[in-house]
Amino acid sequence: MRATTIHGPFDMRVEEVPDPAVREPTDVVVRVLRACICGSDLWAYRGESQRQPGQRIGHEFLGTVVEAGARVTGFVPGDLVVAPFVWADGACEYCAEGLQTSCPQGGFWGSPGSDGGQGEAVRVPFADATLVKLPADAAFDDRLLTALLALSDVLGTGHHAALGAGVTKGSTVAVVGDGAVGLCGVIAAKRLGAERIIALGRHQVRTDLARTFGATDVVAVRGEEAVAAVRDLTGGQGAHAVIEAVGTEQSMRTAVGITRDGGAIGYVGVPHGSGTGLDLGVMFDRNIALRGGVAPVRAYIPELLPDVLDGTVDPSPVFDVTVGLDGVPDGYRAMDNRTALKVLVKP
Amino acid sequence: MRATTIHGPFDMRVEEVPDPAVREPTDVVVRVLRACICGSDLWAYRGESQRQPGQRIGHEFLGTVVEAGARVTGFVPGDLVVAPFVWADGACEYCAEGLQTSCPQGGFWGSPGSDGGQGEAVRVPFADATLVKLPADAAFDDRLLTALLALSDVLGTGHHAALGAGVTKGSTVAVVGDGAVGLCGVIAAKRLGAERIIALGRHQVRTDLARTFGATDVVAVRGEEAVAAVRDLTGGQGAHAVIEAVGTEQSMRTAVGITRDGGAIGYVGVPHGSGTGLDLGVMFDRNIALRGGVAPVRAYIPELLPDVLDGTVDPSPVFDVTVGLDGVPDGYRAMDNRTALKVLVKP
Repeated sequence: MRATTIHGPFDMRVEEVPDPAVREPTDVVVRVLRACICGSDLWAYRGESQRQPGQRIGHEFLGTVVEAGARVTGFVPGDLVVAPFVWADGACEYCAEGLQTSCPQGGFWGSPGSDGGQGEAVRVPFADATLVKLPADAAFDDRLLTALLALSDVLGTGHHAALGAGVTKGSTVAVVGDGAVGLCGVIAAKRLGAERIIALGRHQVRTDLARTFGATDVVAVRGEEAVAAVRDLTGGQGAHAVIEAVGTEQSMRTAVGITRDGGAIGYVGVPHGSGTGLDLGVMFDRNIALRGGVAPVRAYIPELLPDVLDGTVDPSPVFDVTVGLDGVPDGYRAMDNRTALKVLVKP
Repeated sequence: MRATTIHGPFDMRVEEVPDPAVREPTDVVVRVLRACICGSDLWAYRGESQRQPGQRIGHEFLGTVVEAGARVTGFVPGDLVVAPFVWADGACEYCAEGLQTSCPQGGFWGSPGSDGGQGEAVRVPFADATLVKLPADAAFDDRLLTALLALSDVLGTGHHAALGAGVTKGSTVAVVGDGAVGLCGVIAAKRLGAERIIALGRHQVRTDLARTFGATDVVAVRGEEAVAAVRDLTGGQGAHAVIEAVGTEQSMRTAVGITRDGGAIGYVGVPHGSGTGLDLGVMFDRNIALRGGVAPVRAYIPELLPDVLDGTVDPSPVFDVTVGLDGVPDGYRAMDNRTALKVLVKP
């Protein structure tokens, strides 16, 4: 089959790789119908995260089961399924608690030895625990299929951030970051009943989308200016719930600056850089909590899926550029130079 | 009256200062019956926190009301009262939420212009909101009076840490720090139903006390060795709830290392040093939360007081040395060189 590989910084290729096949009786093979490029893939693209030359990439996909191992009970060939961005065994303590990202037998798509989502097919370990079945007729609804793809990462990650930030009915929420995860944080905050949602971002196309998703205010400046603007909007106090969806030192510093005393930062931006951006003295004096991390999206799919299916939430507009498999390297370039928000891949 | 003043690093004096008096109609004046020296006072003592020469000090006290302003409704002269370590107006949004430490009109005893607890008397602003009345007969029970003094800081701070760490019935808890706050963290964890409490500390007198308070295990090493030991005790996973009661970079690093994936660090050690000790990448990968800060102990006194009064919890053994007012400078020396755990002051 053909799949995307990474050979070094800015060197993405689409090439012939071995066809995936069932190896363990708990595996299935999924033919990919939709995949996408994640903001976090750009860390590898830019060489800021190490990859082995030729390693696969892509951790978000949905598709059709084409082969199922002998011990797979939940899926048969032909089933439409979505995969969370990690596989997990469904049998350990962490999986039982809904923290599938800490499963000792789990792993990330695209890690050495596994298939990546940005290819024609993927071997899925522990399929019964990992995959979630989708209604068959969704395959014929292009918009819905795209929205469902967001369940593999960005929608669940936005939800994780909103939970970490402690969003509840009536909350005032601020969202740092206007990428796909930040925008899904807006969707998640709105869905959880936030009354006021302040989106921080400097790209009007994106902040316009944030407004569509439920943002009530937009702050289009950065750093100290952003902190001042959010404080102005919140009676000087800051937001009780802050979603940090970038992962840089500066964005975390902004997040601390705009959090109300006693509030929380739900952080899901993959941390990058040498410093944390956290002023622990300030957080201590103001009782600001920090909660989040890599989102166990598998745990959230059952809750979020019905709302995507019935259209209550529709994250599909975060995908603004569509490419075929051969267009994946162009897709990386477009996301790297921010001409694309999030690139959808139709292999 | 006479009170403790700080004139520079290691220069504590007991000297004549102006008698406190009611200035605002919401003030009372309290004659101090019991005060004490806090581990956090040592930061000032050592010159690591700045103080103005001659500034008062001491933020923990209980005593008898000797004068009450015209608008004070809750107290009359003769009442036995305990003060939390900050005063607060009881009228703002933060006070209503139980975050009195963020009250815009609040302040710390011993801050410039205010009396400190380590003196003969204290002018108490916003007395109705700040003070809590104690049963009059407690004044005749020396042990109980000492236990009640812990409500002004260390017991409530330990409780705040336990809540931040997410201690619930059946929890496995680890406590970093064998000072008075760490020991009160053990008491608080036990009180909240923790099943297993691992105390980290290298001073046997203190860890023995931790066992008395409910610790089931003691880890008497530091750093990487401590991390390995706690992991050994917890099936390799670490503790779900970790109390950080020191505030140094190393103690925070240990706290991160011993927290189970998906767990939380409740931190109440006043942060010191240039680094945070937080490896955000590790916390992200393992979904470790950080919650805590300066404890709003006023909010906790109503819940903790009955348990102290009926003896369900007894923090009085954390006070191991008693001095009169003239002995306060010696008390600082004893705590600084760790020959005293926590010094009780009877002015």
